[in-house]
Amino acid sequence: MDINTIINILKKELDPYRFNHSMNVMETAEALAKHYGADVSKARLAGILHDCGKNYKGEEAIEYVKKIGYEADEIEILQPKLLHGIIGKHLAEEVYGVTDEEVLGAIRWHTTGKSGMNLLEKIIYVADYIEPLRSFEGIDTMRKMAFEDLERCIVYCSESTIKFILKKGAFLHKNTIDTRNYSLMLIRNRNENV
Amino acid sequence: MDINTIINILKKELDPYRFNHSMNVMETAEALAKHYGADVSKARLAGILHDCGKNYKGEEAIEYVKKIGYEADEIEILQPKLLHGIIGKHLAEEVYGVTDEEVLGAIRWHTTGKSGMNLLEKIIYVADYIEPLRSFEGIDTMRKMAFEDLERCIVYCSESTIKFILKKGAFLHKNTIDTRNYSLMLIRNRNENV
Repeated sequence: MDINTIINILKKELDPYRFNHSMNVMETAEALAKHYGADVSKARLAGILHDCGKNYKGEEAIEYVKKIGYEADEIEILQPKLLHGIIGKHLAEEVYGVTDEEVLGAIRWHTTGKSGMNLLEKIIYVADYIEPLRSFEGIDTMRKMAFEDLERCIVYCSESTIKFILKKGAFLHKNTIDTRNYSLMLIRNRNENV
Repeated sequence: MDINTIINILKKELDPYRFNHSMNVMETAEALAKHYGADVSKARLAGILHDCGKNYKGEEAIEYVKKIGYEADEIEILQPKLLHGIIGKHLAEEVYGVTDEEVLGAIRWHTTGKSGMNLLEKIIYVADYIEPLRSFEGIDTMRKMAFEDLERCIVYCSESTIKFILKKGAFLHKNTIDTRNYSLMLIRNRNENV
């Protein structure tokens, strides 16, 4: 399925805020891909599709992942919003005909990140935070950092999530911690090797 | 070995700050044990011994746990301070003759906590934060909360650690997250069952 067809379908499937956000993530991901030498069409495809699983909420999301054989952990069951990347990856394959493993991985991991993300996964993770509709404390620093030092930006994004979750009294997923620890380790190794 | 003999040995083994801190944790743990109906002598024993592994630092700590067959994870290797509970548990058994599994568990888990701590483990975890020598933002609230709602106090303690680690740019251990998530879940269940 070509990306324009996907955009037209998503315009009907997603609510207006989510659709605009997805368009923005697509464009931000494109800019980051150009900047860091990643595949631009993969970045656009993963960007527009990253939230395509967002319509499944609560019990429906839990039912969905059960049906496709994904074993949700305790925190994902308590906060089923965390499952929309897994659902999105499945929809991308089944509904939008995506076969590229990098694109699918970027959709799968965009919410929490994980230890050892590849470049496309990092780009979508960061683009989701910094796209123009986003507005929170530290966003200007984050936007600047995204184009200066992707790894430091990931630390910054994951810390922003951690602080938000603490403030909200919500549960923290271990993948968010892994994301931060991993980028922090890469930065430390990089500094030691200078 | 009786507790007075242990105190005399630790007075020589630990530096003065660490020894005073250990005495304070012993006394605070006693007060919490009385308040929550836990075994007072176990609380005192775990309190005085909780940091007995603190003299092993850096490479020495990594070597120690390797020798006793404990497989340190990536974050523990990057921050060997995290290993002093494991070392302390081993010293408590081998040097101080502790056989009580509850006391040993409380020493083992006092640094990060874990998912599903028992009452004695919770008491030592909290006593380590609130003993009189401690001084940081929010300590007064924490001290009050410790005697009002142990579970909420654990959430508060773990969040204090998370914020401190973020500020310091250090690595965050997943057990700290598990500790917070678990207590948060207990509080949520309790509120739902009212």
